[in-house]
Amino acid sequence: MGVKLIETTPSAYSYPLLVKNIFKNSLIRSPDQEIIYRDKMRYTYRDLHRRVGQLANALSELGVKQGDTVAVMDFDSHRYLECYFAIPMMGAVLHTVHIRLSPEQILYTINHAQDDVILVNSELLPLLEPIKDKIETVKKIILIQETDKAPETAIQFDDTYENMVTNAKKGYEFPDFDENAMATTFYTSGTTGNPKGVYFSHRQLVLHTFGLMTGLCAIDSQAVMTSKDVYMPLTPMFHVHAWGMPYLFTMLGNKQIYPGRYEPEMILKLVVGEKVTFSHCVPTIIHMLVNSPVADKVDLSQWKVVIGGSALPKGLCSAALKHKINLYSAYGMSETCPLLTIAHIKPHMEEWNEDALIDIRCKTGMPIPLVDIEIIDPMGNPVPHDGVQTGEVVTRTPWLTQGYLHNQSKSEELWEGGWLHTGDVGHIDTEGYLKITDRLKDVIKTGGEWVSSLTLEDIISQHPAVSEAAAIGIPDEKWGERPIVLVVLKPDTPSQGLEEEMKAIFMDAFKKGEIPKYGVPDKVLFVDEIAKTGVGKLDKKVLRVQFAD
Amino acid sequence: MGVKLIETTPSAYSYPLLVKNIFKNSLIRSPDQEIIYRDKMRYTYRDLHRRVGQLANALSELGVKQGDTVAVMDFDSHRYLECYFAIPMMGAVLHTVHIRLSPEQILYTINHAQDDVILVNSELLPLLEPIKDKIETVKKIILIQETDKAPETAIQFDDTYENMVTNAKKGYEFPDFDENAMATTFYTSGTTGNPKGVYFSHRQLVLHTFGLMTGLCAIDSQAVMTSKDVYMPLTPMFHVHAWGMPYLFTMLGNKQIYPGRYEPEMILKLVVGEKVTFSHCVPTIIHMLVNSPVADKVDLSQWKVVIGGSALPKGLCSAALKHKINLYSAYGMSETCPLLTIAHIKPHMEEWNEDALIDIRCKTGMPIPLVDIEIIDPMGNPVPHDGVQTGEVVTRTPWLTQGYLHNQSKSEELWEGGWLHTGDVGHIDTEGYLKITDRLKDVIKTGGEWVSSLTLEDIISQHPAVSEAAAIGIPDEKWGERPIVLVVLKPDTPSQGLEEEMKAIFMDAFKKGEIPKYGVPDKVLFVDEIAKTGVGKLDKKVLRVQFAD
Repeated sequence: MGVKLIETTPSAYSYPLLVKNIFKNSLIRSPDQEIIYRDKMRYTYRDLHRRVGQLANALSELGVKQGDTVAVMDFDSHRYLECYFAIPMMGAVLHTVHIRLSPEQILYTINHAQDDVILVNSELLPLLEPIKDKIETVKKIILIQETDKAPETAIQFDDTYENMVTNAKKGYEFPDFDENAMATTFYTSGTTGNPKGVYFSHRQLVLHTFGLMTGLCAIDSQAVMTSKDVYMPLTPMFHVHAWGMPYLFTMLGNKQIYPGRYEPEMILKLVVGEKVTFSHCVPTIIHMLVNSPVADKVDLSQWKVVIGGSALPKGLCSAALKHKINLYSAYGMSETCPLLTIAHIKPHMEEWNEDALIDIRCKTGMPIPLVDIEIIDPMGNPVPHDGVQTGEVVTRTPWLTQGYLHNQSKSEELWEGGWLHTGDVGHIDTEGYLKITDRLKDVIKTGGEWVSSLTLEDIISQHPAVSEAAAIGIPDEKWGERPIVLVVLKPDTPSQGLEEEMKAIFMDAFKKGEIPKYGVPDKVLFVDEIAKTGVGKLDKKVLRVQFAD
Repeated sequence: MGVKLIETTPSAYSYPLLVKNIFKNSLIRSPDQEIIYRDKMRYTYRDLHRRVGQLANALSELGVKQGDTVAVMDFDSHRYLECYFAIPMMGAVLHTVHIRLSPEQILYTINHAQDDVILVNSELLPLLEPIKDKIETVKKIILIQETDKAPETAIQFDDTYENMVTNAKKGYEFPDFDENAMATTFYTSGTTGNPKGVYFSHRQLVLHTFGLMTGLCAIDSQAVMTSKDVYMPLTPMFHVHAWGMPYLFTMLGNKQIYPGRYEPEMILKLVVGEKVTFSHCVPTIIHMLVNSPVADKVDLSQWKVVIGGSALPKGLCSAALKHKINLYSAYGMSETCPLLTIAHIKPHMEEWNEDALIDIRCKTGMPIPLVDIEIIDPMGNPVPHDGVQTGEVVTRTPWLTQGYLHNQSKSEELWEGGWLHTGDVGHIDTEGYLKITDRLKDVIKTGGEWVSSLTLEDIISQHPAVSEAAAIGIPDEKWGERPIVLVVLKPDTPSQGLEEEMKAIFMDAFKKGEIPKYGVPDKVLFVDEIAKTGVGKLDKKVLRVQFAD
């Protein structure tokens, strides 16, 4: 005995979850809606559809077959969007190359993913030149060129992107195939060892798109997604499909803006000029924008921004709210496609005061539909959801990487016990909100107890003189580690007297029960800048070495 | 060579698309949100979750196993909602019995679906009594009783629903199983021959829920779905899962109202008293409400209603808009789970005048994501999307019944050429909107040409004296068929002079090019009522017999 199974494959009427099936209706829905690249180019969904077909024809002409891998090295652009669709829809695999890695690491990923073709922006050639002779499987290289001037380089190109697309045949019959076909791959910027490749299937991208939609749509009692929303990504397209958002907004046929490189003035100009209503970024970008002199002069009150990648400090959240930017945290990672949770504001919370709502906005929220989240102790047992007890965050959902590419042992670690291990530490409160308190490896271990580095950063971020802060553990003979806090002050702020003032804030936090006594940092150091990883997160591994003594 | 396949099954980390996976997060999201049954009962999602576990335990105790079929005969209620989840989530099949069929037809469906258990509302016992001795596979019958008074009946019950649920063990570990497991089955009220059974899998219900969400969410530049929306179905829960909406609103954790039987005063009382913002129904229900004396006295301006099941006549749409009810058409059928299209208002249409927008609201709209719609001629070739040329509507999407239960030949007809044949005639305009012009079998064939009965109804519905109308073809020796129109006038409206006046309207429509000359009806007949099917559609088969001479 068992469940009654419905006969589905092979049959004439099976309907696989393929990227092409979330793409095609946008042409019916919004043929004349615009897609915009910086201040350089604007075209319609009709153009996008035509060019996606042409790109597929051009790649076929180049010899790309099902199962081949096509690497893209570009800035956020309409071209990248074309690749998001055309390459997987042909049955090939899109490798979004992590262009903030070093040339040697990029070489590793190109060879490891066994790329067949590379599409490269002329401005990124300096990354490719030093490694060009060590690339192993690549048969063709296509140049993406934004000006007429040919770049000076020793690399031989087989064509330019624009030439190849414009001259290609129109119309491509994107085939049906198994929904478990690999669609995308990319590499995490792991701070130790070689980058690790994750990969996602068509089924996973489609389901993630719907999960994302459902998560964003009911985020609030106000609409977050309507047909008038205008979308602009501010997390790079090479990084976890820009959170999968380009798939969602293309499916819906909304107006989209691709900003190229992230320059504060250009971003704000686009937000205001194109009436952008929805973006997503890491806290660093919002920090940069809020501190830009232009921000004070423009109206940002229609802009909703989802924050992820690192924890949103309360001080930054409240600075953004002062500019009337509507911020919500979300949570995910390269291994998770990425979205897992989002900071919904529940209807009964709407009457809460701003402080309490900032607390909610800075948590990472509740799991979106089809996502299971648990917090487990080192023995693998679930920890109660009391908003206090912490443990490692583990998850299950249909859109998780099934492993690391060609890396059996790391894949087994990742999936220990049938749950994906995020390496993050957090707690879940009685309302069901997840709060990430640390990376498992960034937790400060002092006297056998754990101190959350993120909590310390959160506390100090609320001091008006603080621009950025990082808390790390430094080696201590007696306690194992002791917390210190590094602070970048706002421009033209003298540091005299501030160390004592800030230490007093931590003592207050201890008295209010926000941190334990042993969590009060030994030192507050004022520094000019704080080391960051390629995707703009605090690089605590580097900081721990830098400040070890 | 082919696509690169990702290894997914069997593995510890596969995550099937099961109904339980869209259910569970509602407890985190909205534990204290309310679910309401008429003016009789209100409880929270916490209660719903507890009772769904208890219902599963109670059914297990009764002997229900995976693959068994449990039939429900009830009115729209919290109990039905519990069954929507508990029964499929156990791995059993939910048979939502069509309670508007005759006892003999109901008997046919119970035996044909091989039901193991029946849950029956005491008020529906008159349907079960005449057939009780001919039921073949049912082992247990459970009584749903809303009062303390035991019903007078010869049927032996094994328990009552409330007793069984309340006394059952709490907590049920709903198992994982194949997402292609059958979850639901029900029978269409076909007007010829025996009812035909359709069936849907867990995968299909989950994907339909996400499609529905995406379709509804971006329906307009105004929010249609927020966390504050309050949902009340007005299409019965036995009929195509009440359009799958209970699955959607439960997933989102919104407030829900189940109205029991459809009585205009009770419905309007609930809409106003519980601040209902979203419903869906057939035109007949809106017609009944708009003509109820209560409707003039209450504020319905927050109420959005999606209309389906039959075409929305323009006159009715404009009457509803006068009450400030926001109407949108949608399209689907029992075989399609059901949603296929919905009448989005595109951003550029918002400036259109009310008449033009009524045209849009009365079309059935654009396909929602993952839905393919085509219009084909009798040879199976696609017809151009010019808003004029008609053909049969065919569709592909992941949520179509894979056939008719135990009926190979009808299944093959349904799926001829790898597309599901709807039996509807329509056209698609250049904006991509589908307009259904007729049922293939209701098209009036006169002099070798087709006349759309729906167009004739639409034209006459705009006359202020018309309450309801039906157009049919009656046999004619010379022309094959000739159109006539049956009209129910508004109360206390004398019919003198109206036939000539209405014929003149059709002549005008001909002069304006809306219908061909041979489409002008020979007769306008005033009648007291128009025959309807069990789900409230005009029963043209009966009408054609009734008015044949």
